[in-house]
Amino acid sequence: MNYNQIFEQIKKKQSFLCVGLDTDINKIPQHLLDSNDPIFEFNKQIVDATAQYVVAYKPNIAFYEALGAKGWESLEKIVEYIKNKYPEIFLIADAKRGDIGNTSNMYAKAFFENMKFDAITLAPYMGEDSVSPFLVYKDKWVVLLALTSNNSAKDFQLLDIKNSDNKLFHNVIEKSSSWGDNNNLMYVVGATKAEKLQDVRKIIPDNFLLIPGVGAQGGSLEEVAKYGMNKKCGLLVNSSRGIIYADSSKKFAEIAAVKTAELQKKMKNLLADIL
Amino acid sequence: MNYNQIFEQIKKKQSFLCVGLDTDINKIPQHLLDSNDPIFEFNKQIVDATAQYVVAYKPNIAFYEALGAKGWESLEKIVEYIKNKYPEIFLIADAKRGDIGNTSNMYAKAFFENMKFDAITLAPYMGEDSVSPFLVYKDKWVVLLALTSNNSAKDFQLLDIKNSDNKLFHNVIEKSSSWGDNNNLMYVVGATKAEKLQDVRKIIPDNFLLIPGVGAQGGSLEEVAKYGMNKKCGLLVNSSRGIIYADSSKKFAEIAAVKTAELQKKMKNLLADIL
Repeated sequence: MNYNQIFEQIKKKQSFLCVGLDTDINKIPQHLLDSNDPIFEFNKQIVDATAQYVVAYKPNIAFYEALGAKGWESLEKIVEYIKNKYPEIFLIADAKRGDIGNTSNMYAKAFFENMKFDAITLAPYMGEDSVSPFLVYKDKWVVLLALTSNNSAKDFQLLDIKNSDNKLFHNVIEKSSSWGDNNNLMYVVGATKAEKLQDVRKIIPDNFLLIPGVGAQGGSLEEVAKYGMNKKCGLLVNSSRGIIYADSSKKFAEIAAVKTAELQKKMKNLLADIL
Repeated sequence: MNYNQIFEQIKKKQSFLCVGLDTDINKIPQHLLDSNDPIFEFNKQIVDATAQYVVAYKPNIAFYEALGAKGWESLEKIVEYIKNKYPEIFLIADAKRGDIGNTSNMYAKAFFENMKFDAITLAPYMGEDSVSPFLVYKDKWVVLLALTSNNSAKDFQLLDIKNSDNKLFHNVIEKSSSWGDNNNLMYVVGATKAEKLQDVRKIIPDNFLLIPGVGAQGGSLEEVAKYGMNKKCGLLVNSSRGIIYADSSKKFAEIAAVKTAELQKKMKNLLADIL
């Protein structure tokens, strides 16, 4: 999927919402536990109820790995289900991998070939040769961690770099932006630091940004749009727990759709300036 | 497993060797492809042939994920096999994970509860709250990336930090060393930068270091010992491809044992000064 295809969807759905599929067997509605594959069943119902409001889904791989081989099977099934039924939706593996080239090749194979993810989140610490094996895939994307939404992001990401006005995360963005281009490289910038989006936009005016931290983690959608939106939107804002666990009854998918529609409506208003 | 238990094994086997189980279905001997689970069969034979010379095994998770749910099953089987037959051997998941606390909890569950790994490699970029969920497990270890063995390690790990004499990797070690202690925190320091081990030892004289990059990546075992060894050894040196793919015939495990024994003999000599 390329930049314009994502932007077309944003225009069509009047939404830049990504829903995080952080599916936890201990948090899904009890009645699903009788089904053959509760994790798949939960995701399927969430996706079918929300797809009309959503441009991206982002399964968080940890939640599937926590269930072992069976969890991995559920993940493979939901990826296949989404890609078959909603091929226009952008599918991000939230995996936060990053290893030497030889190993990154294997992760790329896992997520881009065996499963048909469009994108994967990666950590930048090991540098270019840990990222480039993912960038050789046409129409696939790397979503590189720049400034994350957790408290401890400050431990290293905000360190000042000598002989520059940069903090580490500025440096990560500056240096890595030459490894790929606007059509294969996005960045994670947490909504909990929305004012920092201004700095980010000075370095990379055009790249898509994946914004976690709206909702459960406290970030503001309006601030994210104010500081981060560009002429082609350039934003994918993620919400996970606030949508998928909004309700734990048999109506969970219906309530998730209501929450998703609320966010989409806000996004429609925020998009009005550029569309 | 605690520090002294690892050290006891080092003394008993006169070895500080870790063998990386980077098991690639395209590189294992052809005759194994007829077996029910070639990946497990390969690992089992490698482990049985080399365990007497080895204090740790390190399956690289990417190689199993590249095979999907079936690869994950093979991984679960080999972890169980090693832990049952060789409970004294230290077992490291080379996973290089790192995510917000909520997600790190899930990875910890995957690797420390569902599978009985003793340790997991993590990337430091997201800071303390991405690491601490792993440190609450008694007798389990975090192996944090500090200075990696790949060329692009220089991209960020060697950046100079303002108002200090530190590079980023020094800062990672200094700050993170207070998150845990010598009994649950190790660091990855690549053998391809062996002289930098002197700096590392000034900051953390006592922690174990996991050293990749000896062998295929060109690092020197003698230099690693010279600059990195402490009174309780404090080193686990990893070799992967040089051992497990030393031969591709039916004698692959026998040849792997020969290569492992050669390294163990060198290590015995290097340990003579402290034992």
